[in-house]
Amino acid sequence: MEPTLPLLASAVDATWVMVSAILVIFMQAGFALLEAGSTRMKNAGHIAGKTVLTFGICTLAFWALGFGLTFGNGNSFIGLTGFFFNGTEEQAAAAYESLSFANIPVGIKFLFQLAFAGVSLSIAWGGFAERAKLSVYVVFGILYTILIYPVVGHWIWGGGWLADHGKQDFAGSTVVHLTGATAALVATILLKPRLGKYNKDGSSNLIPGHNQVYTTLGVIILWIGWFGFNAGSAFGSVSGLFGHVALTTNLAAASGAVAALGIAWAVTGKADIPSMLNGVLAALVAITASCAFVEPWAAIVIGSVAGILTFYTAIWFDRMGIDDPIYAFSVHGIAGIWGTLSNGFFAAPALVEKVGVGMPGLFYGGGFHQLGVQALGVFAALVYVLVASYVILAIMKKTMGLRVTEEEEVMGLDLSEHGGYGYPELLQSERPYVSAPQRRSTHSLT
Amino acid sequence: MEPTLPLLASAVDATWVMVSAILVIFMQAGFALLEAGSTRMKNAGHIAGKTVLTFGICTLAFWALGFGLTFGNGNSFIGLTGFFFNGTEEQAAAAYESLSFANIPVGIKFLFQLAFAGVSLSIAWGGFAERAKLSVYVVFGILYTILIYPVVGHWIWGGGWLADHGKQDFAGSTVVHLTGATAALVATILLKPRLGKYNKDGSSNLIPGHNQVYTTLGVIILWIGWFGFNAGSAFGSVSGLFGHVALTTNLAAASGAVAALGIAWAVTGKADIPSMLNGVLAALVAITASCAFVEPWAAIVIGSVAGILTFYTAIWFDRMGIDDPIYAFSVHGIAGIWGTLSNGFFAAPALVEKVGVGMPGLFYGGGFHQLGVQALGVFAALVYVLVASYVILAIMKKTMGLRVTEEEEVMGLDLSEHGGYGYPELLQSERPYVSAPQRRSTHSLT
Amino acid sequence: MEPTLPLLASAVDATWVMVSAILVIFMQAGFALLEAGSTRMKNAGHIAGKTVLTFGICTLAFWALGFGLTFGNGNSFIGLTGFFFNGTEEQAAAAYESLSFANIPVGIKFLFQLAFAGVSLSIAWGGFAERAKLSVYVVFGILYTILIYPVVGHWIWGGGWLADHGKQDFAGSTVVHLTGATAALVATILLKPRLGKYNKDGSSNLIPGHNQVYTTLGVIILWIGWFGFNAGSAFGSVSGLFGHVALTTNLAAASGAVAALGIAWAVTGKADIPSMLNGVLAALVAITASCAFVEPWAAIVIGSVAGILTFYTAIWFDRMGIDDPIYAFSVHGIAGIWGTLSNGFFAAPALVEKVGVGMPGLFYGGGFHQLGVQALGVFAALVYVLVASYVILAIMKKTMGLRVTEEEEVMGLDLSEHGGYGYPELLQSERPYVSAPQRRSTHSLT
Repeated sequence: MEPTLPLLASAVDATWVMVSAILVIFMQAGFALLEAGSTRMKNAGHIAGKTVLTFGICTLAFWALGFGLTFGNGNSFIGLTGFFFNGTEEQAAAAYESLSFANIPVGIKFLFQLAFAGVSLSIAWGGFAERAKLSVYVVFGILYTILIYPVVGHWIWGGGWLADHGKQDFAGSTVVHLTGATAALVATILLKPRLGKYNKDGSSNLIPGHNQVYTTLGVIILWIGWFGFNAGSAFGSVSGLFGHVALTTNLAAASGAVAALGIAWAVTGKADIPSMLNGVLAALVAITASCAFVEPWAAIVIGSVAGILTFYTAIWFDRMGIDDPIYAFSVHGIAGIWGTLSNGFFAAPALVEKVGVGMPGLFYGGGFHQLGVQALGVFAALVYVLVASYVILAIMKKTMGLRVTEEEEVMGLDLSEHGGYGYPELLQSERPYVSAPQRRSTHSLT
Repeated sequence: MEPTLPLLASAVDATWVMVSAILVIFMQAGFALLEAGSTRMKNAGHIAGKTVLTFGICTLAFWALGFGLTFGNGNSFIGLTGFFFNGTEEQAAAAYESLSFANIPVGIKFLFQLAFAGVSLSIAWGGFAERAKLSVYVVFGILYTILIYPVVGHWIWGGGWLADHGKQDFAGSTVVHLTGATAALVATILLKPRLGKYNKDGSSNLIPGHNQVYTTLGVIILWIGWFGFNAGSAFGSVSGLFGHVALTTNLAAASGAVAALGIAWAVTGKADIPSMLNGVLAALVAITASCAFVEPWAAIVIGSVAGILTFYTAIWFDRMGIDDPIYAFSVHGIAGIWGTLSNGFFAAPALVEKVGVGMPGLFYGGGFHQLGVQALGVFAALVYVLVASYVILAIMKKTMGLRVTEEEEVMGLDLSEHGGYGYPELLQSERPYVSAPQRRSTHSLT
Repeated sequence: MEPTLPLLASAVDATWVMVSAILVIFMQAGFALLEAGSTRMKNAGHIAGKTVLTFGICTLAFWALGFGLTFGNGNSFIGLTGFFFNGTEEQAAAAYESLSFANIPVGIKFLFQLAFAGVSLSIAWGGFAERAKLSVYVVFGILYTILIYPVVGHWIWGGGWLADHGKQDFAGSTVVHLTGATAALVATILLKPRLGKYNKDGSSNLIPGHNQVYTTLGVIILWIGWFGFNAGSAFGSVSGLFGHVALTTNLAAASGAVAALGIAWAVTGKADIPSMLNGVLAALVAITASCAFVEPWAAIVIGSVAGILTFYTAIWFDRMGIDDPIYAFSVHGIAGIWGTLSNGFFAAPALVEKVGVGMPGLFYGGGFHQLGVQALGVFAALVYVLVASYVILAIMKKTMGLRVTEEEEVMGLDLSEHGGYGYPELLQSERPYVSAPQRRSTHSLT
């Protein structure tokens, strides 16, 4: 077949989006490491392993229903065509009108969108960590992928009612991050705090993660994965927009690292590494909505503010008695809100024109219009996901139960849910690990 | 130089294949983590480090001889031109006729094919784990790269006799996986089981891997590496085929995770994480032959069956007294066979026509022809690699010996082969952390 | 917008350079793992975490000043335009004449160059490991990014005086590696050896790194990152040069692994894994200058020699009383010098013509001219960085101090600089796992 200019343009775009999809799927490794490193050794195998399981579940549920519900033709609330995706351009042409703008093979579109749903689900898991039963991951993984994510996704990216209002959410501060984080918040409230997290007087104990090398590696993987996430959302490279997006994304992440470490150092006297890493992620979450719409200086402001907001809100949630082990709501929720709203302040006219969605922001003379649209989007997504997650999880709590027994939680989910430690040589002995004092003596005396 | 349409088409294809080659080389990190995590702490540095060493050896041997033997012009059994690859298109035009179909720089073709040989070799190492001498890795690494892999490679991909029969093996379920796994099987039989693996009554002990976070991270890296492996085997992006391939690959992997965890949970009552991870890999191995030829629903079936087959065959080999520490033959061999045969059932007419190799499968009215060709390919590869590996390893066993001494095995290969622990702070002390015999009994008895 | 041939050519090139930039940024994960794995558990969180912090700092400093100083229009010593990069092609056209040869979006050029500056800075940190204060990383990170790296960068890549002489440094053996390594050397001398490294009689103790799986994973990540580093420096894929570069890069790395392990095995009787991994990195450093200019056989020679040189020089520096914990100067400095000089021997006429910089080397009848230019470049960079680093660090030593207290060093930088262990479950307890003094004596005396 003789190549033509449009065919080649499509191939170039497709190549970049494929690379982006792979980067975003690689973010699952980032989440596995971040979450395992932020929790305890006795749960490490469980936490890493369930990441693979739930991405598998998400893939199948999104293939069967989620993709069609999000991007299928339907009404302004939900998509209703294109279930059980068969991989053909014929099905795509008939079923996914909202994806037609990007002229690349539909298999790659599916993979890219699936990767986003997978990230959103992995964010939600933060709120379940170290105490939810494995069966909860299976059931909620399916329900999230077909009942929660597709609704917000359809509203904003699938031709729904928020898309009609010109909601700007370039790569999903709202769709992916706020949605996942809100589900995490509901879960962590319904699950109640981990054993030992709070004292009788209401004061909280730090339960440090067991491996900061993992968390750091996880965050670097997420950082580079975000180039796929954000710059891949340009749906190609021919327009050149992906370069600008990658630039603002990196500037924001850097600013988040510096701002969060700085505030932690200044306020607590400790240059706390987990706080810094949360700052990186919060900044990346925040710039996700605005990466294509803002100038470099604004990206630095957005990232810095996100890093600082996350630091304070993480402390605040902890004090409120909400035990969010991976800080899912502070990092992905608060920063997701801030990022979505930031478009309303910082969206620059030339870039808004280039992207072709919505209006410029307040600081560029655009008035309050776009800020209002962004706030509406945040509010709608937050309310929907709060209600839907609450209903689903409350029913699950009544019927199957959400949490392992106290004894199982103490022994760790590696043993209770999977029958073996993730670190058998470090934790297993004839006098089994289980209680903290025993463990200590095992390590200090031999 | 003014760009032309054909030049740009070549550049687009080359860009994707280059990315793919990098992804496939990155799979070495996946194997290092998978294998180190699946074995014991005292061997961790050795296992990770030898991955780098043997990829280095493989690179030099493939450059000198392997590439020419696989892809050089020759007869239907072996290639005989293009040794000591000099990097020029002139040599390529004269020597590698079987690679001429892809119009991309020959340096990238070399790198991509080298990456495949490296994966195949890394699969073979699974059967040597925790007891083979380092010198065995050096010698067998060279011989595998020039005497084993190129023969099967030439038969199927280098214009050999199986290619003439229309054998479908899109990315190498047979060439890469079955070949490596068969060598692993021969090695693990000749090396005999690890100390403490079997009791006097023939019952076997579980020797759990020391770090499930590593194994999980390794599997996610392999999963994303497989997008390069399979979708890169489209040899470009302009045809658009790579999108379909990535789609089926991901669906199969997801199905393998879910099916393998499900069967482990149902049968043993434990949601065993290593079993799930093996299911992912088995599904990826199986879809490797068929990824371009089958529809999404078939990919799900192929992946699910692979996950289940691997679960049962791993148990069966264990009971048969074959100690295959990383389950190389169950994961890469059994699933490689299943995957190769699956084309004979599921190859869809429209996709077969697009790829242009072989015939449709049984379930699409293609009759038994393609199934027969696939079975012939499996049989031929299996027999050749069994015989060649056996001859090579039996001679090595007689002459240089394959296995470390019992004392060395107990102390661990980090110390015996490299002179220092991979985890010196955890394992080294005057009163050792856990003494060697203690460690052994801990594993074999609990 | 209708795509045109030049637009598509630019998009193809931009896609490859974007992928390359991401790969080079991913090298930060490689450095974090390499450095953390090569040092002790009590410093692991600090070492991994500071990698993220300093890449953040480097990003902001390079955005504000470093990019303009390196690539801005100015004189033959330094660039003077293009500060506070605003992301527009207008600023780029006016300010960065030396980058105009590559026709890709300037945001991607910035990201790619920033990634290089970040690598150079991470190399420098090797010399600070396990004893420098966190505040030193902050301050020196800024100063390195604006006062050291841009000067050498401008001389060679920014249209400066070495560029005028036809200095060949394709991807930065001098600019990136020698510059970083020289700063590391100055730092390690000014900081003095770690406690317990040297005995009173001047003999040295081995302080083994705590995790060879991390170091191996780090090196594999760096290896694949180097495909972005070197092949990305072709600034696109349309010319086809990137394939040749990737080929020579991989051959050199493989040769370095084999040569370094071989020499360590032969000389010490131990197949030392850290020595082998250093050999890989040294070979990659060496081929960085010459990757586009040399033939495959020469890449093998260059990589092998680099692996051997690094083995011997690491021992020599250790004996000289220079405690360079990550072997930064042996790996990046000595191999950086060797690699830069190797162009003077091995640059092949046809490849020199294709790249269009400098002259062929001695072994191809090019005489001593290019060797002289290369030596001049090495000498100039070495002298500048020695002097600049010394002045900066000596002033910092006088004013703010470089090193933590002896007590802090013994307890570890995780506690002293960040307030918590990176591995709290392994290191923290009332009766500590190994008490701090015990830990110190264990390492310094055995």
